[in-house]
Amino acid sequence: MNEKIYLDNNATTKCDEEVLNAMLPYLKEQFGNPSSTYSFGKEVKDKIINARKRIAELLNADESEIIFTSCASESNVTAIMNAVKNYPEKKHVITTKVEHASIMETMKYIESIGYNITYLSVDNLGRINLNELESSITDNTCLISIMIANNEIGNIYPIKEIGQIAKKNNILFHSDSVQAIGKIKIDVKELNIDTLSLSGHKINAPKGIGALYVKNGIHFTPLIFGHQEKNRRGGTENVPYIVGLGKAAELILDDNYKSNDKLGQLRDYMETEIKNNIADIVIYGDLENRLPNTSSIAFKGVKAEELLLMLESFNIFVSTGSACNSEIAEPSHVLTACNADLENYSPIRISLGKYNTKNEIDTFVKRLENIVNMIRKRG
Amino acid sequence: MNEKIYLDNNATTKCDEEVLNAMLPYLKEQFGNPSSTYSFGKEVKDKIINARKRIAELLNADESEIIFTSCASESNVTAIMNAVKNYPEKKHVITTKVEHASIMETMKYIESIGYNITYLSVDNLGRINLNELESSITDNTCLISIMIANNEIGNIYPIKEIGQIAKKNNILFHSDSVQAIGKIKIDVKELNIDTLSLSGHKINAPKGIGALYVKNGIHFTPLIFGHQEKNRRGGTENVPYIVGLGKAAELILDDNYKSNDKLGQLRDYMETEIKNNIADIVIYGDLENRLPNTSSIAFKGVKAEELLLMLESFNIFVSTGSACNSEIAEPSHVLTACNADLENYSPIRISLGKYNTKNEIDTFVKRLENIVNMIRKRG
Repeated sequence: MNEKIYLDNNATTKCDEEVLNAMLPYLKEQFGNPSSTYSFGKEVKDKIINARKRIAELLNADESEIIFTSCASESNVTAIMNAVKNYPEKKHVITTKVEHASIMETMKYIESIGYNITYLSVDNLGRINLNELESSITDNTCLISIMIANNEIGNIYPIKEIGQIAKKNNILFHSDSVQAIGKIKIDVKELNIDTLSLSGHKINAPKGIGALYVKNGIHFTPLIFGHQEKNRRGGTENVPYIVGLGKAAELILDDNYKSNDKLGQLRDYMETEIKNNIADIVIYGDLENRLPNTSSIAFKGVKAEELLLMLESFNIFVSTGSACNSEIAEPSHVLTACNADLENYSPIRISLGKYNTKNEIDTFVKRLENIVNMIRKRG
Repeated sequence: MNEKIYLDNNATTKCDEEVLNAMLPYLKEQFGNPSSTYSFGKEVKDKIINARKRIAELLNADESEIIFTSCASESNVTAIMNAVKNYPEKKHVITTKVEHASIMETMKYIESIGYNITYLSVDNLGRINLNELESSITDNTCLISIMIANNEIGNIYPIKEIGQIAKKNNILFHSDSVQAIGKIKIDVKELNIDTLSLSGHKINAPKGIGALYVKNGIHFTPLIFGHQEKNRRGGTENVPYIVGLGKAAELILDDNYKSNDKLGQLRDYMETEIKNNIADIVIYGDLENRLPNTSSIAFKGVKAEELLLMLESFNIFVSTGSACNSEIAEPSHVLTACNADLENYSPIRISLGKYNTKNEIDTFVKRLENIVNMIRKRG
């Protein structure tokens, strides 16, 4: 069997060895409950404090503004439901057509209880229109929820401008930063973000840990009640994973996004190689404003599902889009919103991570070329 | 330093080595996203299916009735909010005065949005009165939420009878089984339970994983929206911890509660030794219907906080009550509900776990005797 080439880092990432090593003591001997008053509990509590500081630093937030959650989906739902609870008389929410399932499904739920949702459209590059955003705002708008970067096509949205619009209109602004965090710098103050969600497993920490930033001064009602996290999120703290998330943040801070420049170069190299070797391709998304690691590429006449399966036979893993939606036999809502010609150009998503090498990309492109040629010849 | 003697297993437990070993591959090489369509994702999905089967088996439930969550607090809130969402016109809930903080705080929240809560009283042994339960039921009651066993005093509640009352009156019955699971057999069918919560970290799996049983046929609205768990709980699955929770369930099933008989003997031995060696003590709770591992003991004139600190100086860890409430400088709501004489008899909670030995108990009782004598002499 060929060595595995994992190119689906927007779906999930491998846990960093340093992250795992930081976590292990808390899965073994250091198992105290951080809420316990004795030293055996307090020691682990200190580790939670450290991790919280690192996450705050990563966002240019205050540590009091960070709540640990079990995942970004929880953070997203918490933020949306908090806005809803804060302004029970304002029953209008603005979001986009290209958000993550946890946002989309929560929107459907609040629609079912009487809310009116504006789903901002995107152009064929997946870009939103700020004029449409501004003209959608009403006196009833309680929340604008727009992701920093898209998981499928990698588009980076004009968050600073959206933040200014939200602020000017006194509307809460939530942003899902899951795909952006660690890949581009995020400064919640500069961006005027009120609440922000992030996830560990996209930044080489484990699945099952996330965080929610809630700007100081914003009234907050928990989703999960209990005394932990200063009464903002119940449940005994997942100490090992919190420590791991803190370590992952520390690694990003230490690296200062330098490895993302390399990642961008590797992605650009890959796209150039693909363009040079395979005809009739489309790269989806806003190529001027994209995450450095993401590439959504389609090959005319080649079905993504078939491509994915054939690549898999060579132990190469890419995806057709969001893993979170993969069980749904529907075309991608993101590319549908972009009005993409999915019949002729159905894309695979290649998302690089920090462990990918040029050698892997060379192997991948060669396999890809062979497979595309074969499928096209077969017709 | 003396070797650590950990006697606070109702606060949290050490992760079993077999559980940790089962988890580790999923924190390392097997990091695929279970929602991915390729083999690298599907392999881990199979592990989730296996874990779900074990949890179902532990409860005599069907695997389709098990939803993995991040903790029992999440499960509790989800179950309560589901009942509330199911019957928007029925604004009355019945619970007890001795529930866990995640239940109590959720009750306070729904009270704040117009619900009427009946908190059943308990007698001085911490027992509820089934007549009071029956007479509290109105046409407006949408939920009865009563724990299987209490975390502080170990009381086991008459769940079968409560389940029958709920069924007879067509009211949803939720039960928090966190402290009971693994310590006594739980058969959700026999007990007529509609929803039940459990937590990993009380049964030697890690902190940060739980499950919610939802009886088939009950309409379910998620708390955290998304496509995972058959649209019932969003968020990329915490594969390592789910595998760990499954392993913990397997260990309980393999052991068939035999080690709990030993635990009960050890606890009874401890209480007898304490009674034989220390005068003027009170053991709180319903001694006829108690978890085998829990003991809430008070020593006349000895403040629990002082006792706890002095035991800690010998590396012995017990608690004054629930860890989840430890940051609140208030007397235990459980013992207050029991009308306990906390001024003269403030208890420590000793909760044994599967790693405790007779030697540890002997050392503990000896230290305890010395400390109590010293404090009493000092006056």
